Amino acid sequence: MEAEEILEELAERGEFIVIGRGVRRFDALDKALGRAKFTADYVERDALVVKVVRSSLPHALIKGINIDEALKIPGVVAVLTAGDIPGENQIGYALPDQPFLNDVKVHYVGDPIALVCAENEEAAFKGVEAVEIDYEELQAVYTIDEALSEDAPRIHGGEDNIAVTTRVRKGDIEEGFSKAEAIVEDTYETPYQEHMYIEPEAAYAIPEGHDKVTVIGTMQSPFLVREKVAGILGWNLNQVRVIQALTGGAFGGKDDMGPLVCAKAALAAVKLGRPAALILDRDESAAYSVKRYPARIRYRSGADAEGRMTAAEVDITVDCGAYANRAPFWLWRMTAHAAGPYEVEAVHVDGRAVYTNKVFGGSFRGFGDVAMHFAVESQMDMLAEKLGLDPLEFRLRNVLRPGSRTTTNQLLDHSVGIEECLRGVAEASDWWNRRGEVKRIEGKLRGLGVACAHHGISTSRGAPDWSAASLILNEDGTFTYRTGICELGQGSQFGHAKIVAEILGAPLESIRVEGPDTDSTPNARPTHGSRGLMLGGSAAADAALRLRGRMVKVASEMLGCDEGDVELKDGRAYDRRRPENSVSFRELAREMYIRGVSPAAYGFYAPPRRYFDPETGLGVAYPVYTFAATVAEVEVNPETGEVKVVEVWPSMDVGRAIDPLLIEGQIHGAIAQGLGFALTENLIVEEGRVLNPNFKDYVIPSSMDMPRVSDVIIVEKPYRHSAFGAKGVGEPAIISIVSAIANAVYHATGIRFRTLPITAERLYRALRGEKP
Amino acid sequence: MEAEEILEELAERGEFIVIGRGVRRFDALDKALGRAKFTADYVERDALVVKVVRSSLPHALIKGINIDEALKIPGVVAVLTAGDIPGENQIGYALPDQPFLNDVKVHYVGDPIALVCAENEEAAFKGVEAVEIDYEELQAVYTIDEALSEDAPRIHGGEDNIAVTTRVRKGDIEEGFSKAEAIVEDTYETPYQEHMYIEPEAAYAIPEGHDKVTVIGTMQSPFLVREKVAGILGWNLNQVRVIQALTGGAFGGKDDMGPLVCAKAALAAVKLGRPAALILDRDESAAYSVKRYPARIRYRSGADAEGRMTAAEVDITVDCGAYANRAPFWLWRMTAHAAGPYEVEAVHVDGRAVYTNKVFGGSFRGFGDVAMHFAVESQMDMLAEKLGLDPLEFRLRNVLRPGSRTTTNQLLDHSVGIEECLRGVAEASDWWNRRGEVKRIEGKLRGLGVACAHHGISTSRGAPDWSAASLILNEDGTFTYRTGICELGQGSQFGHAKIVAEILGAPLESIRVEGPDTDSTPNARPTHGSRGLMLGGSAAADAALRLRGRMVKVASEMLGCDEGDVELKDGRAYDRRRPENSVSFRELAREMYIRGVSPAAYGFYAPPRRYFDPETGLGVAYPVYTFAATVAEVEVNPETGEVKVVEVWPSMDVGRAIDPLLIEGQIHGAIAQGLGFALTENLIVEEGRVLNPNFKDYVIPSSMDMPRVSDVIIVEKPYRHSAFGAKGVGEPAIISIVSAIANAVYHATGIRFRTLPITAERLYRALRGEKP
Repeated sequence: MEAEEILEELAERGEFIVIGRGVRRFDALDKALGRAKFTADYVERDALVVKVVRSSLPHALIKGINIDEALKIPGVVAVLTAGDIPGENQIGYALPDQPFLNDVKVHYVGDPIALVCAENEEAAFKGVEAVEIDYEELQAVYTIDEALSEDAPRIHGGEDNIAVTTRVRKGDIEEGFSKAEAIVEDTYETPYQEHMYIEPEAAYAIPEGHDKVTVIGTMQSPFLVREKVAGILGWNLNQVRVIQALTGGAFGGKDDMGPLVCAKAALAAVKLGRPAALILDRDESAAYSVKRYPARIRYRSGADAEGRMTAAEVDITVDCGAYANRAPFWLWRMTAHAAGPYEVEAVHVDGRAVYTNKVFGGSFRGFGDVAMHFAVESQMDMLAEKLGLDPLEFRLRNVLRPGSRTTTNQLLDHSVGIEECLRGVAEASDWWNRRGEVKRIEGKLRGLGVACAHHGISTSRGAPDWSAASLILNEDGTFTYRTGICELGQGSQFGHAKIVAEILGAPLESIRVEGPDTDSTPNARPTHGSRGLMLGGSAAADAALRLRGRMVKVASEMLGCDEGDVELKDGRAYDRRRPENSVSFRELAREMYIRGVSPAAYGFYAPPRRYFDPETGLGVAYPVYTFAATVAEVEVNPETGEVKVVEVWPSMDVGRAIDPLLIEGQIHGAIAQGLGFALTENLIVEEGRVLNPNFKDYVIPSSMDMPRVSDVIIVEKPYRHSAFGAKGVGEPAIISIVSAIANAVYHATGIRFRTLPITAERLYRALRGEKP
Repeated sequence: MEAEEILEELAERGEFIVIGRGVRRFDALDKALGRAKFTADYVERDALVVKVVRSSLPHALIKGINIDEALKIPGVVAVLTAGDIPGENQIGYALPDQPFLNDVKVHYVGDPIALVCAENEEAAFKGVEAVEIDYEELQAVYTIDEALSEDAPRIHGGEDNIAVTTRVRKGDIEEGFSKAEAIVEDTYETPYQEHMYIEPEAAYAIPEGHDKVTVIGTMQSPFLVREKVAGILGWNLNQVRVIQALTGGAFGGKDDMGPLVCAKAALAAVKLGRPAALILDRDESAAYSVKRYPARIRYRSGADAEGRMTAAEVDITVDCGAYANRAPFWLWRMTAHAAGPYEVEAVHVDGRAVYTNKVFGGSFRGFGDVAMHFAVESQMDMLAEKLGLDPLEFRLRNVLRPGSRTTTNQLLDHSVGIEECLRGVAEASDWWNRRGEVKRIEGKLRGLGVACAHHGISTSRGAPDWSAASLILNEDGTFTYRTGICELGQGSQFGHAKIVAEILGAPLESIRVEGPDTDSTPNARPTHGSRGLMLGGSAAADAALRLRGRMVKVASEMLGCDEGDVELKDGRAYDRRRPENSVSFRELAREMYIRGVSPAAYGFYAPPRRYFDPETGLGVAYPVYTFAATVAEVEVNPETGEVKVVEVWPSMDVGRAIDPLLIEGQIHGAIAQGLGFALTENLIVEEGRVLNPNFKDYVIPSSMDMPRVSDVIIVEKPYRHSAFGAKGVGEPAIISIVSAIANAVYHATGIRFRTLPITAERLYRALRGEKP
């Protein structure tokens, strides 16, 4: 099923009915009323309370685990350790380096060792306190440099602490630099970022007889959770049912945390034959959950006298923390986006991810692209300055266009709208007039910065990707749509419903969306990589098109007309030549049931297969890219070092705007989150311990910190292989705002920060010529 | 999808792999361990308790309902009455004669008036006591004769108390009787039978936000429940999710009770925004739940000198009780089966169902066919005696054969195995030798009786029928199968799994069966009419065949062979020409996912459409019939009148025996239930009040009452339009045992009972020449 076919089928209709219009979301009212159900709302009063016994040391051998005292505490039902795992004691994502419950060695402060299962919270807490771990402490590794030093302890054995490496060899790098008129080189560092979702991690597991378990949790990938739970239990996939409850914020973190938390609850429930719940506290969540990976990027790039990029040499080191988890994918994404959304003839990239004895990193909105674009967009500004060009003009000369080739030499033959994005924000922000004029206002320093972004949608390199959905036409003419894509606040499911409505000519209200249930659709793959709408929506379209074919056929027989003359609209099937001749979907549904014409369809979609060469790092890295450009205006208070973001002009090439309101929602949220990463969020980790795991000391932006956000400039360059051409939005939204702010700060102050966040304290010192 | 195609596809394989073998059921262990979850097991401790305020009078106008005192009781949250129903206050099944909550008039003792919703059971009971109903009592109608009398009160208005009538006019009845050498005529009466399922009615409803409700309950038709709940709430079908919990006995009763109970819990949950549970007590269940419809049959039939049936004239009256409910279907089934499984040239039938002010009847295993065959099989014995023929020999001369026409003149061109059944039980019971020899043993009277049965499978007349299923191939090569057909103890779902396993060459253990969830399959229609395996299994086959086609295609590409050479077996796909060349289902599944080949399919099946003329009552009454014959030996104690069933020889033409153990299970259970109906179960209803709603006074057979049951003689005359030719088993199993016992009692004692049950008291009196 190709996007073109869908569009062709619907072309007759003229303009879209629901697509492209902002409509109130189905789930808005329940969320506003407090009636939406999150994981903790499912937990029965009699459920076992599970709490995790965690390592108190960053690096140590476990010599013994004594649970005797814990078991004496009234209300403690059991303490489960590695020996209680029926399956494999392994829950690593990309590499098998991560025991589920550690019984040999711990690798960071917070590493799970045992699960206390108790009748109530108090007993569970006491139980955790009472478990005695006998450690033999080992030397710990805290920094990238320590990890890479010759004599560093090997955290996971082997020859070094390198978990994975990447490389790209595109073009002749020497020749590229030889053509350059200007070359700049610098090293950039980005820190941890904690997701700080409002709802902490939670899972509730219910045994179903002796050989099945249902797990309800806050997550992003029910099918990954299923796989991991099945692995821990040593069961088949069909013995584990995973249901995603509404999720109160995720941002990637719950893609990683879902399996970890759900498998713990599931193990307790299955071993003890009782419903069991594990709900993390805020401090536990903030201290021990995955974070945005810290990274260090050494970046050298050059441009010729015409202002054309000629070469980029990039060296990337990602700090995994204790386990690789997503680091290979994170590193790869950085690698594949290393040249930014620009055409650069020669690109060499070398990357590595290293282990340290700290909380491990994981998925976070924008993935490695936030860090990578921070480096790229700083370099672009610096090169422009060196060449005496306006930074926006310099970008315009280099942005990817149809026919361009990316970092990995991937040919982009369509769906490339970064130029339009950039021109759009320039006009909206009155860039050409205002960039030169920015000045002091009432003693504050004003600056205007621009940044671009691109973000590959779906999985990287040749890795397969697909999604699945289910659609049932009920006898009353209403539809039950189910997707494996999660509602995380972003509204992807609502986008699917609009796609279904558009294809079937069904009133949007007649389509009820049900969330992920691993027993009720095939694996729909994760809600990450901004793939929820592009892949999930395409699976929805596939289901709708299958059903549409049957509906049209039966309708043509009922109406006595050719199939080609049947029009589905407003919940009725019409004979186009005699519009007074029509049947309602209720009548049509009834007739399909009676005739034995299946009123239900599974939708399944995989993007075209891709070629990729792991040796050179060249080939089709991602099926398609979303592009964005942002202009930000900041005001710096030189007395305090405080940066206030005054206004933001966002733009994005979304392929097709299924719902402009949802896109706006994503962009507004990403501006807040990017603002936090750029300016205020500063996780303090000392000797492997997170010192500020709370909202008080870890400062995320509040609504008071939000800038004025100009109307989102939506560019539509449809992708050929997705439903209606839609591409992902959620992640690309955060990438350019971070760099735009940093560039604006430079514009305002002349100080370029190579390390984030640009806290008031650091800027205050820098303004006074001190080391930030 | 036709059965032949399936069989053809699998013919290459030689004999069946799992079909036809008795295998341990998936659900056996959980049921044995007490880990199977029934509705009450789902109810959370904090759920609202719902109790029903019921009419204490059989027939009365409601002048007022005062809930004020009830609301004052601590713990009572609300009392809901008709005015609280957002949708339509109507829950009639066949006719719209049944208010959901009565506020105008009550029609039987037990009629629902209000729902007390409370924090706990005690408060709920007190609340029920405290609701005051102001009645104006009306004259009540208790019997068929009263209902039909000219001056009877009209229970539901109108011109009379007749809810519905039927008729069949086949052949020239006068001519038929004129050819008869022997004519017998009698009137038969069958009473109420209470299902007495071990698990009483229960429903648990959970509001999902402001506009959806999930209902978990003990039921037979989740989709009927959905329709009725949606009707009461005034919602679309996709706003109601119904999940069938494992059901602890049903026998038809829960087909009717499911909607009634679930809609009450759902109304409470939605109105009050809290989970709410309604669980009937035993006495409430036994007194107020539906029962087997009482019926009266006047039967006149004749046979010629050759022992061939020539005519049957049948007049049927069904006692509906307070509401029609299923009576039209019940009456119709009696009508269509009025000639029994015999070819009779001239058949005239007139039927009617009448209202009385008693608990209303409903579905019960065997439906009207138990009563009808009691009449038919008594007549057959009497005619044989009059003609001087052995009753089994007489039946053999008349049974339906391929090419015969039924009561409704339906041509049976295949799948007619009654002759084989009859010959089978004759041989097994050594009938020809033993029938003449039966004698007194230690002062007891022994008798041998025979009876035949036929039972149309699926819906009656031209009414459409269909079923649906879902099948997902998971990435690990296991399958998740979901059906809308309910597990009621009968094991139909297990039969589906065997059909899927057979078609896919999958290990039976690799198929996990999930039960009905109205959000996850299209309407699969009810689990009644013995259609669960025949229709549901055919839907399963449809899903499996769809998936099989895709699996074979991808496997052929992986194996590099023609599709025709791919063999699916033992969870692998083989190249038949080079069996060392194979891939596992895990590998195959993975490849399908990667290629975007949908690994899931909905199955949908409808039997061929049928012609039926409501005017003459002629045409295709049912798609196909299951046939059965039973010989029973009884021992009568002349001192007490007690009848002991010594041995039973059962046989059945099941089309195809998917699992002989399941068939045996159904037949053993039906023998117990039929024995109860024939001999011991005697519901006492006086002035509209059920006086013995408990296990102590309403005597169902215990294991001590079970006869020896000879090996079931399974005849396989496959039905052309179902998966592997399977026909239904559950209901046909009960029909012939009742009549065989009655005929055996006659053989032993010379006393023919025209009214059931043949209790010891009645037989004791009869043996003494008194009126029984």
